[in-house]
Amino acid sequence: MNEQIVVKSYPTGWLQETDFEYQQNPVPSPKTGEVLIKNNFLSLDPYMRGRLSPSKSYAKSAELGEVMVGSCTGQVIESKSEKFKVGDIVLSGLGWQTHGVCNERDIKRIDTTKIPEHAYLGVLGMPGVTAWTGLIDICEPKRGETVVVDAASGAVGSVVGQLALARGCNVVGIAGGVEKCNYVVKELGFNTCLDHRASDFKDQLKAALPNGIDCLFENVGGEILENLLLLMNPFSRIALCGLVSEYNVNPYGNRSLRSILTNRIKFQGFIVTDKPDTWPAIIEELKRAYLDGLLKYKLSQVEGIKNAPTALIGLLKGENFGKQVVKL
Amino acid sequence: MNEQIVVKSYPTGWLQETDFEYQQNPVPSPKTGEVLIKNNFLSLDPYMRGRLSPSKSYAKSAELGEVMVGSCTGQVIESKSEKFKVGDIVLSGLGWQTHGVCNERDIKRIDTTKIPEHAYLGVLGMPGVTAWTGLIDICEPKRGETVVVDAASGAVGSVVGQLALARGCNVVGIAGGVEKCNYVVKELGFNTCLDHRASDFKDQLKAALPNGIDCLFENVGGEILENLLLLMNPFSRIALCGLVSEYNVNPYGNRSLRSILTNRIKFQGFIVTDKPDTWPAIIEELKRAYLDGLLKYKLSQVEGIKNAPTALIGLLKGENFGKQVVKL
Repeated sequence: MNEQIVVKSYPTGWLQETDFEYQQNPVPSPKTGEVLIKNNFLSLDPYMRGRLSPSKSYAKSAELGEVMVGSCTGQVIESKSEKFKVGDIVLSGLGWQTHGVCNERDIKRIDTTKIPEHAYLGVLGMPGVTAWTGLIDICEPKRGETVVVDAASGAVGSVVGQLALARGCNVVGIAGGVEKCNYVVKELGFNTCLDHRASDFKDQLKAALPNGIDCLFENVGGEILENLLLLMNPFSRIALCGLVSEYNVNPYGNRSLRSILTNRIKFQGFIVTDKPDTWPAIIEELKRAYLDGLLKYKLSQVEGIKNAPTALIGLLKGENFGKQVVKL
Repeated sequence: MNEQIVVKSYPTGWLQETDFEYQQNPVPSPKTGEVLIKNNFLSLDPYMRGRLSPSKSYAKSAELGEVMVGSCTGQVIESKSEKFKVGDIVLSGLGWQTHGVCNERDIKRIDTTKIPEHAYLGVLGMPGVTAWTGLIDICEPKRGETVVVDAASGAVGSVVGQLALARGCNVVGIAGGVEKCNYVVKELGFNTCLDHRASDFKDQLKAALPNGIDCLFENVGGEILENLLLLMNPFSRIALCGLVSEYNVNPYGNRSLRSILTNRIKFQGFIVTDKPDTWPAIIEELKRAYLDGLLKYKLSQVEGIKNAPTALIGLLKGENFGKQVVKL
């Protein structure tokens, strides 16, 4: 049987397990030009909260009663395509289910000889391209500049920091908890990492940034962003990638916008899917960095599709540690 | 005697008349390379509130006990410069006083044969260059796009709208009061102007912007900016020029930052003095537009240096109507 998680309701406020429903349905059969895939990994990402809403956003909503959206890697187990054969490992958008049929146009073969399959959902996938795009295209970091990234141990933040280190920047991470901060500094090589849960976080921030911030890669929003804005340098840049602290609660009232004026900040939002043409070259660059050992990452893994809702809620609360996937 | 207004104290909260002091001092004498100027007009501008603060901003503070800063036009009445002769009309940064001595390097001769002197403090001066820079450099408006500007009847806003009209944009102004709105539409030719004091302003805004906003030239901030952010289009641009509604009160907590993310907005602060090299060409362009009748403006004039403090407070409250000057 095909095990699936479908969207049952759009949450108001915090996402709940009860907004999803587990179902079993017959495994579908491919037609000409299609393949049947057995999924191995499902990616969980903060953007998913935005899909669970009836309101217009940059992408269409996940439909009520339909399988929840998401990226997966898996194996072709039946092929009616001339381009894919049984055994091929592919990237797809099958979403939260163990099996599914895809048109050959909608999937991509991935090479797992030297690279683990789940890397294509993280450092070499959408999160990696997101990190590259916001940092390089919007922040334009220069050697010696200070780059700050929050959610620093996460799928996107960890890549942002490592790319900035490779460009000779002073990299300051922000993460939730001492364990994550230790990992970010000791394993990933960030110059500093601050625990935003510390009672004196605001003071630590000022002390860690005596020369201010030139580039901010913003994933979190809320009070953290409000504090960071006050430390931005003249002519600094902010790539706004996410506001995960605000997705399940009322939006935060940010009182630091005057810094955008006085410091002539460029504050720019972006969505990585806007520039699909740039992806192949970026992924090639990330792949080389990965194979050179310059892009480390940590996997946060739960087992079984039934655990996906709880894992996504945990991700939105910052309870994951590294790139969150569901092993199917 | 030289009549002067000096800074007595930095206000916390609303600026008060008592933060200034009227003084009479002897008229100074020019040395070699200097001229003595009798001021005719003093420009009052919102940026002045930012100078009346001990905190670091993009420009240095007005000094306590010193003459308040500001731009003036006036007449050379004594010259020890080979470049200027008695009778020349010049632009200077003499500030809030009736007379003053300037080095020949720090003043600029202005041509008043076809253009009124005070225009060089408004449409053809700092406010005009500000309008051009934010609109053209940051907003990059394209024909047919919708441009919104608040403080639309003011020195900067009125130029923004007229430049955008000349580029074939749909221009929507926001101003305080029916009289200002009527002027903006009937005299300046804006397509629409909304009174932000109207009780149903938020609904009027939505109704007036069925196709959203492509370019926002922001002078006001506060709740107006919060509402406008929600109407921005995908890939729209905001030039942040001022936050005049927040200069004398606690900063507003803006709850609409998510729109920057979902709409991939470029939100950029700027200060017109950052790019002095661009000024001459911009002023030439503005001068041609003015002489062609494409840059109308309204003068809001008070008489006498003693009235400058009250007039500045009025400007910060939106009580002026058009470019505010003090006739000396």
